[in-house]
Amino acid sequence: MEADQLPITDRIRGRRRPHRVTHARDDIRAALDAAPIAHIGFVHNGGPVVIPTFHWVHGDMVYWHGSRASRAIRSGFTGEVCLTVTMLDALVLARSAFHHSANYRSVMMFGRPTEIVAEEEKLLALQHFMDRRFPGRWDQLRPVRPQELKATAISCLSIAEASIKVRDGGPIDDPEDRDAPVWAGIIPVSIQYGSAQPDGPGAGQATLPAPLVLP
Amino acid sequence: MEADQLPITDRIRGRRRPHRVTHARDDIRAALDAAPIAHIGFVHNGGPVVIPTFHWVHGDMVYWHGSRASRAIRSGFTGEVCLTVTMLDALVLARSAFHHSANYRSVMMFGRPTEIVAEEEKLLALQHFMDRRFPGRWDQLRPVRPQELKATAISCLSIAEASIKVRDGGPIDDPEDRDAPVWAGIIPVSIQYGSAQPDGPGAGQATLPAPLVLP
Repeated sequence: MEADQLPITDRIRGRRRPHRVTHARDDIRAALDAAPIAHIGFVHNGGPVVIPTFHWVHGDMVYWHGSRASRAIRSGFTGEVCLTVTMLDALVLARSAFHHSANYRSVMMFGRPTEIVAEEEKLLALQHFMDRRFPGRWDQLRPVRPQELKATAISCLSIAEASIKVRDGGPIDDPEDRDAPVWAGIIPVSIQYGSAQPDGPGAGQATLPAPLVLP
Repeated sequence: MEADQLPITDRIRGRRRPHRVTHARDDIRAALDAAPIAHIGFVHNGGPVVIPTFHWVHGDMVYWHGSRASRAIRSGFTGEVCLTVTMLDALVLARSAFHHSANYRSVMMFGRPTEIVAEEEKLLALQHFMDRRFPGRWDQLRPVRPQELKATAISCLSIAEASIKVRDGGPIDDPEDRDAPVWAGIIPVSIQYGSAQPDGPGAGQATLPAPLVLP
């Protein structure tokens, strides 16, 4: 599943090209919307740091946010980053160990992000984040306080900088392995959202905004 | 959900400390076992790169593998890395936008990995990987060929280098927001493995090794 990992021989043979990189905008957008979290990589004190974060898409930009409290993490908002969003779609069991693989969609974005600094732009960005998952909810919440906004860092990168790698389909075995007496196929993997659990009796009195849009 | 992101005020107040970092070995091991994939960060040409990969635990080590084909990716096996494994456990909806959060377990490991080079050790590592998910399957597969082994890079880091951040529980709202007329609570998130889909009629004749151990 790691880039360039298993299907080497397939790329050499050019049989199915399961392991492809494209800039297909619709595929990128769909993968970014489907994945609940991203991993942001940046360099701090010369070494790599990878942190999970929520991300969201609005217009042609991908946003993420975090606290301004940590100096280390500031590098993930202002320095060069690699934002990677991965959807694992299936485990792929082949007829040899070597050809075991995964179906996945992996979006990568490199660049120096733009930090959102104007208060009204930050508010709008946070509203888009909420609206994306829970339409209508933003209006039910009290206004964000100035000090809360100040404590929140928001950055973005253009989707134009993104590429996506996709592997799908079944296992691609060596011809001589096709009749091996071993199970081969795929095991689908997906993210499941469970039943909402209210926080105490008070919370249960209000309803979740409908429709609850989950990734 | 990003490190140091939302529950700033909670840490200040020390109320529930939902956002904690520990070196609790059992929690680290459980999170590493539960997560199907890791994200490896490394520095290439001065910039950060984050790549999804399968990982597995054996003994006190965390392993990952990939192709030796890409020179860029070689840095993820021999240079300094940050391996991050994230389980998103729930979306946390608070009574204010600011206190929205996520329940998650995030393992981070920093270090310069040890690459496994001896053929027999590489074979053993790959067998552990297969055994972890699909006990008994390794013995059903034809032996790995020398050129396949040669094409595969395997590295590891010690679990002793790992830390874990965990947030769990419900939303932690400001006292003055507790009675706000808005739904609050959590939406559990989990990974679901679907029904195995055989690759053609031949594959269906053999059965999946039982028990099928999924993360």
